[in-house]
Amino acid sequence: MSDLDFNYILNKMKNQEVDRPNKSTSGTLSGHAAGEPFEKLAYKELKEKYPGRIFKQYEYLNDIYLKNPTHITVKQRKELFDSPTALFLFSRGDNAIRYWSPQNIFDEKQNDTADILYYDHHFYDIIDIKTRNIKKGGQPPNIISAYKLANMCALMLDNEEFDNIEIDYIEIDWIEDGDKLKCTDTHHGRLFKANPETLYINWSAGMQIQFHVSELDQSWKDSRREWAIEYLRKFVNSAEDRCTKMRKTYIEPFLRYIQ
Amino acid sequence: MSDLDFNYILNKMKNQEVDRPNKSTSGTLSGHAAGEPFEKLAYKELKEKYPGRIFKQYEYLNDIYLKNPTHITVKQRKELFDSPTALFLFSRGDNAIRYWSPQNIFDEKQNDTADILYYDHHFYDIIDIKTRNIKKGGQPPNIISAYKLANMCALMLDNEEFDNIEIDYIEIDWIEDGDKLKCTDTHHGRLFKANPETLYINWSAGMQIQFHVSELDQSWKDSRREWAIEYLRKFVNSAEDRCTKMRKTYIEPFLRYIQ
Repeated sequence: MSDLDFNYILNKMKNQEVDRPNKSTSGTLSGHAAGEPFEKLAYKELKEKYPGRIFKQYEYLNDIYLKNPTHITVKQRKELFDSPTALFLFSRGDNAIRYWSPQNIFDEKQNDTADILYYDHHFYDIIDIKTRNIKKGGQPPNIISAYKLANMCALMLDNEEFDNIEIDYIEIDWIEDGDKLKCTDTHHGRLFKANPETLYINWSAGMQIQFHVSELDQSWKDSRREWAIEYLRKFVNSAEDRCTKMRKTYIEPFLRYIQ
Repeated sequence: MSDLDFNYILNKMKNQEVDRPNKSTSGTLSGHAAGEPFEKLAYKELKEKYPGRIFKQYEYLNDIYLKNPTHITVKQRKELFDSPTALFLFSRGDNAIRYWSPQNIFDEKQNDTADILYYDHHFYDIIDIKTRNIKKGGQPPNIISAYKLANMCALMLDNEEFDNIEIDYIEIDWIEDGDKLKCTDTHHGRLFKANPETLYINWSAGMQIQFHVSELDQSWKDSRREWAIEYLRKFVNSAEDRCTKMRKTYIEPFLRYIQ
C-alpha cells in the first residue's frame, strides 16, 4: 500500500509560482505545455519528500535495468516486473527493450502511462499531474486511454492482482500573473474511488477518459475486483452506444446518396 | 472559378525565415503553434497579392455583415450567403449570429472551417496552411472533419452546387535555424483532385481526415458530382469498418468478464 501523503503535496504546491513557459507576447497560453513547469515542480517536490521512490516512468525502467545487468534478453527484462499488470502498464515494446543498453537508455515517451511513478516494495502508484488554467473554460483533459484501462482491468482479474497498483491524479489550478503562473488551488482524485459508471469516455478523442480531477466522483466503496468488473461493463456498454450512435449519425443519413 | 496562383505563393514562401515562437530554451517546438508564424506570413502575402479577396473566415463574416447593415435578423444574415453549402461551411451558430453587432464582431474560432478564405464573385476558395517540422517524423496533421465534409457533399448534391467552392491546402516545410525557423519547401494539394478512396479518416482523432499535403493523391479526373458521391461512399464504408473493428477490439474480448 502507498503511504503517499497527498495532502503534503497539495499544500506544498498551493500558491507556488513558476516562470511563464512562453513569451507573454507570443499569444495565448494553452494546452498541456502551459502547465508543464508546475508538473516539473511537483515532481521535484515529490522526489525530495520520497527519495528513491519517485521516478519518471522511463527513469524507473532505466533504474531496474541498470540494477540488473545480467538480465539482458527481452524475456529476462520483462521478468523484472513481478506483476503482469505493471508489466502491461509500464513496459516498453519488445524492440525497445531489446536495444536498451546503459549507453542507450530510455527517454520520455508521449504515450507512457505515468507522468510520475511512486514505487515501494512491489507497490506502484501512478501519479498524473493535470494542470488547469482556471481563467479558461476548457474541456476536461485527457486522463488515460479507456482501452488501456480495460486491458488493465482484464489483467487484474486474470491474475487476481488487486492491491499492488494505485492510480492518482493531482489537479493544479493556475492563473497568469505577469511573467509568472501562479497556483491558486490543488485537488487530489483517486481513480479507483470513482464509480466507473460516472466516467466519461470520449471515443473520438483517442478513446480517452476525460474529467477534471476536482470533479471526479469519489464515492466507490466496493472492492477493487468489483471495480474492475464494473469498469469493463461501463467500457463495453459505452462502445455499444458509440456504435449505435455512429450508425445513426454517420451511416444512415448518407445511404440515400450512394444507393 | 479561382484565378488563385498557387505557384506564386509557394515560391514566395520558399526560403522565408520567421522568428521562433518560443524561447529555444523552453524545449521542443511542436504542434500547430510552432508553425503559426508561417501561417501569418502566408496570409499576409496572399492579402497583398489579392487585395479585397483574402479573408480570415471571421473577417469575411464581419465584412458581409458590416456591408449589409439592414440585414439584422438571423434569417436575413444567413441569406447573405447565396449558397447553402457556403452557409453550412462558414456561418456561425444562430445565437452568435443573433448577438453580432458592429460593436460585438466575430473573432477567430478554433473550429472555423477555413484558415484563409478567398472570395470573388460568389466563388469561395478555402485555403488551409499546414506547417511541418520536417526534422520530426510526425503523423499527418488533421485536415478537416470527415463528417463536416460528408455534410458538405450531401448539400452539394441536394443543391446541385458543384462549381462555387474549392478547398486547397498549402504545406510549408520548415527547420529550426538558430533563433529562426526557415521554410525549406512548399507544396500545394487540392482536396477535390484527390481520389476519395485514398483519403484516411481517423475516427478516434475527432473523425479527422489526415494527410501530408505533399503526399495527397491528385489523380481524380471525374466530375465534382461524382467526387461527392464517391466521398460519401468512402465515408459510410469507413464508418462501417470502424464499427466492425470496435466490436472486435473493444467489445468481444471483454464480454467474458461481465457476463
